[in-house]
Amino acid sequence: MPLISNDTEGRKDVKPLALHRLPATPATVHWGYFDPALAPAIRVKSGDLVHAEAVTHHAGDAPELMMDDAIHKIFTEIPESDRTPGVHIMTGPIWVEDAKPGDMIEVRYLSMVPRFRYGANLAANWGYLYKEFNEQERVTIYQIDADGNNARAHYAYDFQGKYLTPGKITKCPECDRQKALEGVRIPVRPHLGTAGVAPDVKGRVSTIPPGLHGGNIDNWRIGAGATMYYPVAVDGALFSIGDPHISQGDGEISGTAIEASLDVVFQVILRKDFHFPSPLLETADSWIVHGFGDDLDQAMRAASLDMLHLLNEHQGLSRNDSYSLMSVAADFGVTQVVDTRQGVHVRISRGLFPPKGDRR
Amino acid sequence: MPLISNDTEGRKDVKPLALHRLPATPATVHWGYFDPALAPAIRVKSGDLVHAEAVTHHAGDAPELMMDDAIHKIFTEIPESDRTPGVHIMTGPIWVEDAKPGDMIEVRYLSMVPRFRYGANLAANWGYLYKEFNEQERVTIYQIDADGNNARAHYAYDFQGKYLTPGKITKCPECDRQKALEGVRIPVRPHLGTAGVAPDVKGRVSTIPPGLHGGNIDNWRIGAGATMYYPVAVDGALFSIGDPHISQGDGEISGTAIEASLDVVFQVILRKDFHFPSPLLETADSWIVHGFGDDLDQAMRAASLDMLHLLNEHQGLSRNDSYSLMSVAADFGVTQVVDTRQGVHVRISRGLFPPKGDRR
Repeated sequence: MPLISNDTEGRKDVKPLALHRLPATPATVHWGYFDPALAPAIRVKSGDLVHAEAVTHHAGDAPELMMDDAIHKIFTEIPESDRTPGVHIMTGPIWVEDAKPGDMIEVRYLSMVPRFRYGANLAANWGYLYKEFNEQERVTIYQIDADGNNARAHYAYDFQGKYLTPGKITKCPECDRQKALEGVRIPVRPHLGTAGVAPDVKGRVSTIPPGLHGGNIDNWRIGAGATMYYPVAVDGALFSIGDPHISQGDGEISGTAIEASLDVVFQVILRKDFHFPSPLLETADSWIVHGFGDDLDQAMRAASLDMLHLLNEHQGLSRNDSYSLMSVAADFGVTQVVDTRQGVHVRISRGLFPPKGDRR
Repeated sequence: MPLISNDTEGRKDVKPLALHRLPATPATVHWGYFDPALAPAIRVKSGDLVHAEAVTHHAGDAPELMMDDAIHKIFTEIPESDRTPGVHIMTGPIWVEDAKPGDMIEVRYLSMVPRFRYGANLAANWGYLYKEFNEQERVTIYQIDADGNNARAHYAYDFQGKYLTPGKITKCPECDRQKALEGVRIPVRPHLGTAGVAPDVKGRVSTIPPGLHGGNIDNWRIGAGATMYYPVAVDGALFSIGDPHISQGDGEISGTAIEASLDVVFQVILRKDFHFPSPLLETADSWIVHGFGDDLDQAMRAASLDMLHLLNEHQGLSRNDSYSLMSVAADFGVTQVVDTRQGVHVRISRGLFPPKGDRR
């Protein structure tokens, strides 16, 4: 990659990169929604770097471990009435100069560093096995090892009442804290649960269901080293990030990951040379296509059709060849089953393909 | 692993391993069904090795490349009326001495070697995107490189008529052969699409839908180096193998993999020391639990409940801890969507867990 030829030979100049700082403050976050009418927090040009803060809406699950003054300010200054219709604290939006509907923005995620050494997992009322757990919600606080490789459970507690709106600050007395997952080590996979562009709609769109604009995709592969391509729907793209995670499994079945604030560096590149209908992920060795639907079957169908499109339109395979290749070499996975709209992703190795022009 | 302690200290003797040869012949295969009333092809003791032939029911898609006299004999001597209600050529069954309902058999797959250098993928009428391809079925013949690392498309042809019953011998004239997937290389993943024990039912059970007995799981990880645990349902277990594949993606969306005969070496071990309700896969670094259902949502639920069971009952985690761990570290994938009963598998790394007794 990049997906489409990005020939650097013969270029005349190498421009110095611009770096924008985007801290999360009550003025630079929007809580629970995307909205094309929102004023940009910053404006960037294609190629610029952004160093942004992504703050978890679960920071209040262990405020003594997961909050500082700046996050506390967000939690106290943004009224609950303005955190709607979704739940995620989104940093942005970022105006990308000259971005128009029909373009793509390529976001190269370069670095994701935990802000604290703690994160929270909630077995939530929207979790997949809520009934099997007698409708008892439970918080497990995880600690990241000093070397940043693994997380371990720090303590857990049963949540009192119903966890209706993330964003509350919970006081769990010492006496209620229980040991959890003793000795179990979980490799960290820092990533953004939610990131995307403003959809072309009137008014607010919830951050909860993922969609063609990106949003709450909850694919743990959207971490440092990954590149996402988002289809631009409105002028300026209006890209925002939020819902940072330390680790998540495919499925996210309890309803949440290990939710933890991250400092994120990424580069935004405006692409007018190709279009793709849904959020597309590129890693060092794979392309991953996302499908969404009211259930897994719908999501599976959407993912299969968009992978067919990728192979046919962008790799230049015939439709017949694309279909056979998908059956023998593409791997479908369950992204999540807890975000109202469910997700299936499908991965194909980039290493399968010969260089263009070399079809031997 | 093994899943349950397999302490070898203090053992008195190391028995020489017995090796059974089980070629596929009209007398040692059953086509399209499991049946607890079937007479065993061979009888083995716990610990014995078996060197068996698994023959693809798609050998007739390129008879000049995928058949020899022994396979031709199977295709011609077993009447079509006896290939029912499923489609797979199963080698066996193997009687495991002293196996009783409630036991498990552990099958360690040691080696899977292609019998020929060719395999067939069919875009079938039962494929996931059959309608999107205007109900045209198509065969793509793949060739395995001489070094056995990769497969490449050799030629393809549109199937004439409807591919109702695999097991026919197709003559595709040279003139109908088309180039396909030029330059694309597909890493091989030799594995058994179908393997399992006889279910406890009266009469024949189709090999097409997978189930608690194993059967047509179509997980490409069931290859050399993998160990499967199957719950025994009838005396002697009556284990059979078939439906060999060279490569398949998670999903198997065209309806088939690269179907190709394999010679398989495996060891059968009778386990009376633990029970698991569904076919369980163990690899070098993972445990993988299989769920099945009429759709992906049912399969997802079954897989999630059985993974909860594995962590709770066999790893000794509390139910709460198991649930949190699954959400942050277990990966759900789509096994297949084309075998009548759909499949979801869920993987957890064995490396997460401390040695028993070391919970620091």
